[in-house]
Amino acid sequence: MIQRHFRNLLEAQWSQNNFMCVGLDSDLAKIPDCIRTKYKSTHKMIDAFNKAIVDATKDLVCAYKPNSAFYESLGDGGMRVLRETIEYIHLVAPEVVVIDDAKRGDIGKTNEHYAKATFDYLQADAITVNPYPGAEALKPFLDRVEKGVIVLCRPSNPGAGEFQDLIVDREPLYCHVARFVSYAWNAHGNCSLVVGATYPDELRKVRGIISDIPILIPGIGTQGGDLKETVQAGKNSRGQGMIINASSSIIFASSGKDFADAARQETLNLHGLINAYL
Amino acid sequence: MIQRHFRNLLEAQWSQNNFMCVGLDSDLAKIPDCIRTKYKSTHKMIDAFNKAIVDATKDLVCAYKPNSAFYESLGDGGMRVLRETIEYIHLVAPEVVVIDDAKRGDIGKTNEHYAKATFDYLQADAITVNPYPGAEALKPFLDRVEKGVIVLCRPSNPGAGEFQDLIVDREPLYCHVARFVSYAWNAHGNCSLVVGATYPDELRKVRGIISDIPILIPGIGTQGGDLKETVQAGKNSRGQGMIINASSSIIFASSGKDFADAARQETLNLHGLINAYL
Repeated sequence: MIQRHFRNLLEAQWSQNNFMCVGLDSDLAKIPDCIRTKYKSTHKMIDAFNKAIVDATKDLVCAYKPNSAFYESLGDGGMRVLRETIEYIHLVAPEVVVIDDAKRGDIGKTNEHYAKATFDYLQADAITVNPYPGAEALKPFLDRVEKGVIVLCRPSNPGAGEFQDLIVDREPLYCHVARFVSYAWNAHGNCSLVVGATYPDELRKVRGIISDIPILIPGIGTQGGDLKETVQAGKNSRGQGMIINASSSIIFASSGKDFADAARQETLNLHGLINAYL
Repeated sequence: MIQRHFRNLLEAQWSQNNFMCVGLDSDLAKIPDCIRTKYKSTHKMIDAFNKAIVDATKDLVCAYKPNSAFYESLGDGGMRVLRETIEYIHLVAPEVVVIDDAKRGDIGKTNEHYAKATFDYLQADAITVNPYPGAEALKPFLDRVEKGVIVLCRPSNPGAGEFQDLIVDREPLYCHVARFVSYAWNAHGNCSLVVGATYPDELRKVRGIISDIPILIPGIGTQGGDLKETVQAGKNSRGQGMIINASSSIIFASSGKDFADAARQETLNLHGLINAYL
């Protein structure tokens, strides 16, 4: 088994021009009929669907990002399906990073348990976290030096600005998040930030603050982020540093029997465009 | 079955002078030996422990607040134990509110799934959420008018100020959270705020902004919040409006066979003090 290390795994992927992240927002309501009719339990449906998507895309991506909410809403055993998916990714694509997109964040002693759930039970390589509780509270995540701690900075939703654009010392709040991470929280070199592709100007601003720190960029695809602008605003000085995520537009590219091929085609398409725009 | 409604259930409890909330931070490592030796599976241990605590305290509280992290870190089936605990509370204490302390918060379509997990699968009456994504993203929670949406404002951790005390328009950020909730997000009357007992001055400030909106106040007990100051700073104009939480100091009051009696005694003690200070 390889020694897993978030940042090193990412750097190795980037050196092979892999910047895509496939978001496993595996909504039960959208699973293709060919999977749905084959399995009796909803958990087996999701499990089979995820494995097919991973098999079809694993040589084209730097990361997979299962979204915890879609597994939690499955109820009993949702977390078990998520663990099985992550286990499968480690098995068939050990060089690919797995991000538990869980947006966690509580006081320190609680975060110890969240870190345990994500890193030890689920075996994820990274987790998305919320900056609101501050670094002292996030320490149980930050102290796991081999794991990635991906801090919510300027997410992709239309109403993100309500809170994140509040002006602190002549600068919007999300820029302060970028500064906190860049100047303090990233002491172990294991931090990253979430900035949506739907906000290219903000993405450029954040890149200007954080130097080479990786940015997880959701919002490509169905959310409408422009890929060319995203790549140009998001890349670091070495033309790397990006984890560019698409979810529904890839995994639900087709609702037919060709869903896995369609997912590969869409990933390949985005992979090619990113490398063309770099 | 009663028609469950977060705010109405709370008001009924307050009219009976019940302001205590017992935090079910049921850390497996601290479960008393008498429970540990009786059951083979960790899940049955937590289940039995929680039921004993609920049986011993249910006439003295307005709410129970299981902390999601402690269940997620149990791995397989942790959510099932949590659901069973909540089911049990609804059965034996249907007039008591159950808060899923999960600090969730993502973009809208993801929050739909978190809302489903908390309100439909777990059957909680309320959830704690993070304000960072803004109201547009939190809509799937806010739209569940019968459910409580408890927004992180000034949590109890020592480093809370790093982020929450940033000055926006001559006022700390957490005050803006209180204003957002009070003037906009609480349109359905189902919001509440988290302010730690470890910050009585901030608690007084928030109460001054939000009028009668309920405040969930953690940090009593092992975290060291002063109860007298808390009650005086946190109460609303009717001498109510508080959900005062203690976790470890109650549920782990004794590690012996008398753990449930000790939990009752500690709850009774705090219950008495709160009513004396009001």
